[in-house]
Amino acid sequence: MACRFEITERVQFSETDMAGIVHFSNFFRYMERVEHAFFRSLGMSIFEHGEDKVAWPRVHASCDYMAPLKFEEEFRVELLVEEVRDKVIRHLIRLWHLDGTLAGEGRLTVACVRKDPDSGKMKAVSIPDRIRSKIEAAPAEMLARPPR
Amino acid sequence: MACRFEITERVQFSETDMAGIVHFSNFFRYMERVEHAFFRSLGMSIFEHGEDKVAWPRVHASCDYMAPLKFEEEFRVELLVEEVRDKVIRHLIRLWHLDGTLAGEGRLTVACVRKDPDSGKMKAVSIPDRIRSKIEAAPAEMLARPPR
Amino acid sequence: MACRFEITERVQFSETDMAGIVHFSNFFRYMERVEHAFFRSLGMSIFEHGEDKVAWPRVHASCDYMAPLKFEEEFRVELLVEEVRDKVIRHLIRLWHLDGTLAGEGRLTVACVRKDPDSGKMKAVSIPDRIRSKIEAAPAEMLARPPR
Amino acid sequence: MACRFEITERVQFSETDMAGIVHFSNFFRYMERVEHAFFRSLGMSIFEHGEDKVAWPRVHASCDYMAPLKFEEEFRVELLVEEVRDKVIRHLIRLWHLDGTLAGEGRLTVACVRKDPDSGKMKAVSIPDRIRSKIEAAPAEMLARPPR
Repeated sequence: MACRFEITERVQFSETDMAGIVHFSNFFRYMERVEHAFFRSLGMSIFEHGEDKVAWPRVHASCDYMAPLKFEEEFRVELLVEEVRDKVIRHLIRLWHLDGTLAGEGRLTVACVRKDPDSGKMKAVSIPDRIRSKIEAAPAEMLARPPR
Repeated sequence: MACRFEITERVQFSETDMAGIVHFSNFFRYMERVEHAFFRSLGMSIFEHGEDKVAWPRVHASCDYMAPLKFEEEFRVELLVEEVRDKVIRHLIRLWHLDGTLAGEGRLTVACVRKDPDSGKMKAVSIPDRIRSKIEAAPAEMLARPPR
Repeated sequence: MACRFEITERVQFSETDMAGIVHFSNFFRYMERVEHAFFRSLGMSIFEHGEDKVAWPRVHASCDYMAPLKFEEEFRVELLVEEVRDKVIRHLIRLWHLDGTLAGEGRLTVACVRKDPDSGKMKAVSIPDRIRSKIEAAPAEMLARPPR
Repeated sequence: MACRFEITERVQFSETDMAGIVHFSNFFRYMERVEHAFFRSLGMSIFEHGEDKVAWPRVHASCDYMAPLKFEEEFRVELLVEEVRDKVIRHLIRLWHLDGTLAGEGRLTVACVRKDPDSGKMKAVSIPDRIRSKIEAAPAEMLARPPR
């Protein structure tokens, strides 16, 4: 059962804006990047194929911005599973400068959905056990924001 | 004194993802788009030049996703000023399908900063009166999320 | 029969980079934007649904950059149909500052494809007459790059 | 003297579009990514600071698309220096599927510019020797497109 994952990335030029820092919307792309890498690390993909596939639309996303990320800077993106409910997972994601200061902290709340064969519409469903059995919430002390 | 602004946009192909809908990170770009258009509508620019210029880094951004936006769809983006504090503005932004259903609702909290001449660093400052005098918080009944 | 179309756009903050100008990759998004608007202007969509739908993958894209586009600047994007072949359309697209100077000039070569029912793969096909009958190449004098 | 560099990347979800493949404009972002990594590999940065800094605006970019890149796919981006002129470098960039088939092939032509102290405008200048001495054109046999 996994509750934490981390990747290291480098800021690309196209991710900056004319203020000279990473555009705030790209923090959400970094957050999604670690979420998908977390799934791959467990032998799964966020985008499934096949009969009983589920998908993970975002129902909520948020970010607090502490310190800007700059061009060519390497930084860490840390995912912590904050909560696993029957049909929903909430991820807490921290973006860290390599010197240990926090660049940003955000949350992604994603719902597990499957196409309803009757209506053809996406419908929230219980997280399949093949996924649920691999993910657990992180302990409270990991979730608490570290002192600056 | 203005407290509300609205633009109509159309979903572009490059804003969609392989799930066939607008990528969730682009909701934040739409939110910024209306914020900047709001400033323009008041004869200002979010990006100032000149001696006493201020800038508006984001300190918080969030979005709740209700219903996906699809390719070529026209939609409205409505900005409501939720709060104006001494150094901070909080915008409430709703993305509406043209049929009146809510696609998403988010918030942008932006701080007013100016480069400190001594340290060379950005520092939060009181919103200059030339800007403060044009913006006011929307009344509570406009801010309350409308019934579905 | 149409051979030319034009839209006016405004540079958004998220489209700039730390050099203070529109990131070069976004010129291609502007070019696609006018292509899709051109199809809409003819009562069509670049993304079709239905049994006999075709799609338009890009086989070539290029751009020459003459003068940067800047934040909040309004500019015109002009599409000229340069060539219509049996299975391929080539668009010539010019991005104009409002003062009449050229910001960039590019080309999109797009192929008409349909899913082959046997192989399931996309295969180049003749442009359907319902589309072909609406589009023609622009006259040579419109295609010639105007003197500076 | 270097004439070739290569990186391996993975397709991110936000880089796909509703056609289920990488949006064509993102090929240009991958191309820029390898160009900047190439400079870093030589102990330089594409974005310089300091008195005699130069910058590298794009004057031309093009891409031929052979085979789409798909979500989560790993792929290689290979840069070959095609030509070094006094004030201009032309890069030939190939995007490879891991099975050795070509996904795309493009070119970036970049000019070396420096801010003119009198006019304040960017002006093309000779590539400084500190950069010129590290880069050379690749031999013709490396530049020739390999047989399919």
